[in-house]
Amino acid sequence: MRIVVVGASGTIGKAVVGALADQHDIIQVGKQHGDHQVDITRSDSILQLFERIGKVDAIVSAAGRLHFGPLAEMNAEQFKIGLHDKLLGQVDLALIGQHYLNDGGSITLTSGIVSEEPIRYGANASAVNAAIEGFVRGAAVELPRGLRINAVSPNVLQESWPVYGPYFAGFEAVPASRVALAYQRSVEGVQTGRVYRVW
Amino acid sequence: MRIVVVGASGTIGKAVVGALADQHDIIQVGKQHGDHQVDITRSDSILQLFERIGKVDAIVSAAGRLHFGPLAEMNAEQFKIGLHDKLLGQVDLALIGQHYLNDGGSITLTSGIVSEEPIRYGANASAVNAAIEGFVRGAAVELPRGLRINAVSPNVLQESWPVYGPYFAGFEAVPASRVALAYQRSVEGVQTGRVYRVW
Repeated sequence: MRIVVVGASGTIGKAVVGALADQHDIIQVGKQHGDHQVDITRSDSILQLFERIGKVDAIVSAAGRLHFGPLAEMNAEQFKIGLHDKLLGQVDLALIGQHYLNDGGSITLTSGIVSEEPIRYGANASAVNAAIEGFVRGAAVELPRGLRINAVSPNVLQESWPVYGPYFAGFEAVPASRVALAYQRSVEGVQTGRVYRVW
Repeated sequence: MRIVVVGASGTIGKAVVGALADQHDIIQVGKQHGDHQVDITRSDSILQLFERIGKVDAIVSAAGRLHFGPLAEMNAEQFKIGLHDKLLGQVDLALIGQHYLNDGGSITLTSGIVSEEPIRYGANASAVNAAIEGFVRGAAVELPRGLRINAVSPNVLQESWPVYGPYFAGFEAVPASRVALAYQRSVEGVQTGRVYRVW
């Protein structure tokens, strides 16, 4: 398959590329790195990306920023960070990307455990990750031509533990290599509208 | 209790006011109607509302617009309608309103069945409703002073059936009076971080 991985230089992206590169033709995309660049917060940038790379069999997104901070100090502008980046950025990759998928192709987005298991300072993450999962359920029922869409919801990564560990006390960190399997399952599998939890 | 109901002139809002007015002091708020007006898409408008009405014991929101339309034609600008109105509008009511709640007070937001049960043309609604539920889970764990936050997820309303019925084939429509009970349960009850489904 011809697979575009957005966020390919991130911790998850690298692991996904590692898991899929043997069997597939991977196009690595990042904000600054990779074979191509994209700013997922801009529809014109996403459109240009797909116009350059053409038709693909799978779109994998492991990209997007969130806002972390105390609820008592949070404001709408901060909340918009996650809404416009990790949420709408990934949604827009799907909305535009659906038209560049070959029949039977798939879209795999990234949510996260905080959707279901809240953490301190994580209200934006809980909302955004839940929204991605809701979008996947909503989009799956409308996609034509055997197109599929799923989300992967990773636990905190072992690789990110030094930075995020303090916010995830008692969570069982998972290696990115295990998380990558869920993306493979989505890309090479048959399900749609699913959230693959790697918890 | 002193309770502010945002969206008080809507089908759900009216039923909530009807259920609570006997026992409580209700402040009815709408975009154009009610005792006070607010535009929930503007933080300054929300701030002005709370500055005018002062401290309350409960904030109930049954307000917010969504985008309905075919996934194949959906774009980011349309998707933002739900993100900025029903989602961020209600989130911002909570973010600002938390500072105007008396100890032990509550916030009750509105999601909807499409969060879990997708319908045609409902990808924006699925994402937005799921996000509200995620936000409620995330915010509940940080609220101090015994403050609580919940969401009510109504099925399609019997009162809305003439308009929305065609999109909800086989769904069991519920009367707004039954939905209002869930808001009462949230306001007068003891739980937090809950999604009350009225399905």
